[in-house]
Amino acid sequence: MSTGEFELIAKFIERLPAPGPEVLVASGDDAAVADHDGPVVVSVDAAVEGVHFERPAFSAEAIGRKALASAVSDLAAMAATPRHGYVVVGVPPGEPDSNLLALADGIGSVATTEQMAIIGGDLVGSPVLMISVTAIGAEADGTPLVTRAGAQPGDAVVVTGEIGGAAAGLRLLGAETRADPDGPLIARQLSPTPRVVAGQALARAGATAMIDLSDGLVADASHLARASGVRIEMEVESVPFQPGAVETLSSDPREGRISAASGGEDYELLACLPEDRISAVRTEIEGECELTRIGSVLEGDGAVLLDDSGGSLPVDGFDHLADR
Amino acid sequence: MSTGEFELIAKFIERLPAPGPEVLVASGDDAAVADHDGPVVVSVDAAVEGVHFERPAFSAEAIGRKALASAVSDLAAMAATPRHGYVVVGVPPGEPDSNLLALADGIGSVATTEQMAIIGGDLVGSPVLMISVTAIGAEADGTPLVTRAGAQPGDAVVVTGEIGGAAAGLRLLGAETRADPDGPLIARQLSPTPRVVAGQALARAGATAMIDLSDGLVADASHLARASGVRIEMEVESVPFQPGAVETLSSDPREGRISAASGGEDYELLACLPEDRISAVRTEIEGECELTRIGSVLEGDGAVLLDDSGGSLPVDGFDHLADR
Repeated sequence: MSTGEFELIAKFIERLPAPGPEVLVASGDDAAVADHDGPVVVSVDAAVEGVHFERPAFSAEAIGRKALASAVSDLAAMAATPRHGYVVVGVPPGEPDSNLLALADGIGSVATTEQMAIIGGDLVGSPVLMISVTAIGAEADGTPLVTRAGAQPGDAVVVTGEIGGAAAGLRLLGAETRADPDGPLIARQLSPTPRVVAGQALARAGATAMIDLSDGLVADASHLARASGVRIEMEVESVPFQPGAVETLSSDPREGRISAASGGEDYELLACLPEDRISAVRTEIEGECELTRIGSVLEGDGAVLLDDSGGSLPVDGFDHLADR
Repeated sequence: MSTGEFELIAKFIERLPAPGPEVLVASGDDAAVADHDGPVVVSVDAAVEGVHFERPAFSAEAIGRKALASAVSDLAAMAATPRHGYVVVGVPPGEPDSNLLALADGIGSVATTEQMAIIGGDLVGSPVLMISVTAIGAEADGTPLVTRAGAQPGDAVVVTGEIGGAAAGLRLLGAETRADPDGPLIARQLSPTPRVVAGQALARAGATAMIDLSDGLVADASHLARASGVRIEMEVESVPFQPGAVETLSSDPREGRISAASGGEDYELLACLPEDRISAVRTEIEGECELTRIGSVLEGDGAVLLDDSGGSLPVDGFDHLADR
């Protein structure tokens, strides 16, 4: 057996935060074993070169960072606390080890922020760079888990942070010249921030349903509306678009807003909750992110984004298999 | 948003066994939630077209079956009980839906046998068919988890079942003409049986270390020896090669045995335990599989396979990234 693979795996693991005492068996055995209280909350997510990212626009570090962040974002949308992660990396022929270690650094930076141990995984051959992440979380103390399915007519609809930046950043990454390669729009695309703290604050305040914004504002609102059996109406005037996002996406303001509301990957949270609980959440997450009321839950079905004349904007979601 | 992806996912999920009451949130939310007692045991495994399997030699159903079975085998090697699985499938352009549903059937057949719910996953675009499986297990009642790291000098070394069939089956799958397309060697390659029952019986009988045979007999014995800080000596005369495997791999018996002991993917278990416990395990797993003593644990390091003159056979393992 070549020692190359094992040495590379060892170097990969060195880049990740060391597991704490709750990890009973870490990387290197047949399976990992970790202490766990209460229900396990599990999300899986994969990113494939040429489908979810292109190089060199995406550095290996950004690929690792975003892959773990997007899986953690799913846990945040359940109001769970991230505990452990498992990473499978598909490695193309000739890929330099330095890229794999940079990818590990990206994973490690998010794992450190989220206080997660990465305790298992695999490196496998693959025609293109590919990463599949499993994130396991637990209930936080005194914090109920929140699904997509509990929204009630009369609830307010809120979002954390800002919308549209990831789509605008992707546009800038594909542009011939980049006015601002390290600007906030590109950063939003390459380094999303999972809203773990806000998700738990929303849950404790009585959020009835939550989802993270990965497919796009209206698409994800539709998922939530379907799961809850309700209708969601949002007003475009209220949506907190990230500064510069609308202008980057189109010179026409209406088109720009439609694109920003269609684009996914902002990894903010969309939540439903009784209106009188919003201020309590705002107080708890002050300094973390904004919380903006953008609409209401009604009886009915579907999700729409209304313009200021009350008409519905033609906003699409994102089909992961559209190019199949 | 196209409804195609969601309909396909719905059909995919329909093929899988329905989750039981311990599943609090199944597929379709941001993350899955399941009740869990005690430590979580997690294994991840991936298989990529052109690297781990070729089509049409591997049917979509076989790909699904083997992917879940190999992840479950890692749980078996810890003596854990499989509980839940999560599946990411990378779908190439133009892949017929019928293939994805056949893949789901393969996953479903193993999940049904193992009484596992598949409660999360994703379908993503990919240049080739790819599958990544996360299997989550729990401690079985009265059964300690067993790592690779506890083997003691003086222990006997045993294997479950038969060795070399998967390598011989792979050879037959690549041959121009197949004498026996549905024979037991090809079946071993396409439909491995995770040794969950045997792993737990070994653990209850006092197994000090276990590993599943995915990389090859000597390679995996070396992993276990390294983790335990011991030397493992096995005698080739004692190894229970699957009937026909040695002859399929070479017309020269010595070469055939070397190939059979080098080939991986049999997904049998290699375990170390005090010799006087072997008969108790044999009684418990009667009708399930054989248990064969093939060697001993000594002080020292490394793992060797000895021929009948006491010389060490030149047996290699398998480097997953050798083609990188």
